[in-house]
Amino acid sequence: MNEITVSGFRASSGAAGVKAPGKASRDDMALVAADSPAVAAAVFTRNIVQAAPVRVAAENLKSGRCQALLMNSGNANACTGEQGIQDARELCREVAERLGCPETLVVPASTGVIGTPLPVQRMRPIIPTLAARLRPDGFSSAARAIMTTDTFPKLSVRRGSFGKREVTVLGFAKGAGMIMPNMATMLCAIITDAAVTQDALALALRQAVDQSFHRLTVDGDTSTNDMVLAMASGAAGNKPITRYDPEVAQCAELLLGCTLELARMIARDGEGATKFVEVIVRGAPTRESARAMARKIANSPLVKTAFYGHDANWGRIICAAGTSGVQFDPERFDLRFDDVLLVSNGVRVSDEAEEQAHEVLKHSAFTVTLDLKAGPAQDSVFTCDLSADYVRINAEYRT
Amino acid sequence: MNEITVSGFRASSGAAGVKAPGKASRDDMALVAADSPAVAAAVFTRNIVQAAPVRVAAENLKSGRCQALLMNSGNANACTGEQGIQDARELCREVAERLGCPETLVVPASTGVIGTPLPVQRMRPIIPTLAARLRPDGFSSAARAIMTTDTFPKLSVRRGSFGKREVTVLGFAKGAGMIMPNMATMLCAIITDAAVTQDALALALRQAVDQSFHRLTVDGDTSTNDMVLAMASGAAGNKPITRYDPEVAQCAELLLGCTLELARMIARDGEGATKFVEVIVRGAPTRESARAMARKIANSPLVKTAFYGHDANWGRIICAAGTSGVQFDPERFDLRFDDVLLVSNGVRVSDEAEEQAHEVLKHSAFTVTLDLKAGPAQDSVFTCDLSADYVRINAEYRT
Repeated sequence: MNEITVSGFRASSGAAGVKAPGKASRDDMALVAADSPAVAAAVFTRNIVQAAPVRVAAENLKSGRCQALLMNSGNANACTGEQGIQDARELCREVAERLGCPETLVVPASTGVIGTPLPVQRMRPIIPTLAARLRPDGFSSAARAIMTTDTFPKLSVRRGSFGKREVTVLGFAKGAGMIMPNMATMLCAIITDAAVTQDALALALRQAVDQSFHRLTVDGDTSTNDMVLAMASGAAGNKPITRYDPEVAQCAELLLGCTLELARMIARDGEGATKFVEVIVRGAPTRESARAMARKIANSPLVKTAFYGHDANWGRIICAAGTSGVQFDPERFDLRFDDVLLVSNGVRVSDEAEEQAHEVLKHSAFTVTLDLKAGPAQDSVFTCDLSADYVRINAEYRT
Repeated sequence: MNEITVSGFRASSGAAGVKAPGKASRDDMALVAADSPAVAAAVFTRNIVQAAPVRVAAENLKSGRCQALLMNSGNANACTGEQGIQDARELCREVAERLGCPETLVVPASTGVIGTPLPVQRMRPIIPTLAARLRPDGFSSAARAIMTTDTFPKLSVRRGSFGKREVTVLGFAKGAGMIMPNMATMLCAIITDAAVTQDALALALRQAVDQSFHRLTVDGDTSTNDMVLAMASGAAGNKPITRYDPEVAQCAELLLGCTLELARMIARDGEGATKFVEVIVRGAPTRESARAMARKIANSPLVKTAFYGHDANWGRIICAAGTSGVQFDPERFDLRFDDVLLVSNGVRVSDEAEEQAHEVLKHSAFTVTLDLKAGPAQDSVFTCDLSADYVRINAEYRT
């Protein structure tokens, strides 16, 4: 991915030993900078406990502009009180001085352990290095620097055109620990050289996030630090897209292309995950109810452990569906694993179907489709299985 | 517990090989019978997918009377369509014939795998044996017969008096797989020789269940088969308690004594559990909000794996609290592990406190207390940790 560049942006990374002084062996800070103030929009966690960087970011982004994004792994700077706010601001100030821009144009983003003060004394000295290292092809190393328990960096690129101008959208992200409520932080940065007004960018971003990252997590059940930031430089030279232009839909599509690929990568890379599963609910009264039920199924530990054990345990799936708050007729639904119809009108089809479903569950990726036959709507959610490794990773995370 | 008897009731157990023909090595059916029709009340699962025995039980209990309870482990008779209803009725009919009572006075209760037809041909022949074996001290073996992944049988006895009459309440239960949404079935039978009217028994049971079993599971997030049945023979000879008598509160207390002890046993015996944890939320605006937040914390996989790893990871606890839908000030709360104050006004107290909290988490039982300082109300929830064994047990449950 080294050759990928987006006009008007550069990035870099460096090692500060954020998590522990002796552990500076890998990069844990990243900087994304625009050549000049970029149009910016963001989506933040809905957790009422918001980390210091989220609060500073929201404050600084009120102008609708942003010139730099400073990211770190190893420490979330969450539940750190007033000191946490001051720490985040101090780092932003240092970036601003190095880049020669106002402090309020710098956005901080952190991920890692909650409740431990940010080691500013180790992080601040790295910032001049980050500024000096900024390169148009630095995004791959930036994506690597923000990884926590991720096993691979996550980047996605989409290209399109507005009028005669080619535009590029590049997104990179770090994963949630697992696709379940209250899981570890998800951070995502999206940059584009398209020219777009702030309200149009905000609209396109909301639409893209709703169709991608919001299919990974339960509404409101996000971490203290979740954040998706989009920045548009306008360097592509297209006529700026406003929220009333038809191109705003195309812009949202481009963003969605990135965020959907990143969301799938995150599910695939869930902590300890051995399987990627898309849970589809169709025939629902509304899209909202379809998604609510798909989430309930995808979040059930019993369902997830059955996936891990290659067990086509449809009873657990129906049990989870029955507690989603969505009405349906338990004697009417169909259930499929990929194309294998295992349950028809609420009753298991046959031993053969169960054997075939068992084979589907041995694959590393499959779909579960629940058809309620109760309406026209459909939605789906991405998830992964729950393995013994997940427990090991999270029992040992801080120790 | 062999000596415990309750006037007017007998119980027995037997081995039918419900789960698989060759596996009749341990008892998997139990029968509880009253000498004459007893006053009865029940609380059922709120899952909209209700197993056949739940539906038959609800139907039969409309009379407010019950003479026998037939229980089995190994098969939940859930998602089995019309055949499941017929199967449950057929077994009730057989019991009724053996006991010489109307079929509608027999209540069925099942737990085990969902979606597999009930092996009536193996179960029905055992019923005459169950009837023949009925003994006043048969409850201990009945409690053992309904175990699934439980590691010990769960019985609880309370004694009290109404007027000059001594009364006994005996409850036995099998556990939920784990204290989380959508987990395996909980069944509980409570018998007493107290004389009590049907509406008074129903009221007392609702109050007892609300303060015990409902502190184990999220409202509406129960299995397809959950059921608590209370039966009162009146053999103690006290003046029958009506719902307008002050004694109804005392009756509820007696039931609560049993159900609370059983609820704690179930949490202690959660699948793979190594720790029993009571999550207390105090200083909340209302009891409902306190319980909602305690549940959210108790159900977080990240919190539960941290308990398993002896990690006093208060950041995960606050993160879960922040998504519970309950408003609070993140800069005002206190957090304790047992008596160790780890977080004061939203900020960690000290390294020493963290070290002490770490020691608390090594215990097999402890409390987590979150004080929101936002109101007068308090409630608590019982839970356990999430271990690698939990995943193993549930990945292999059917295979």
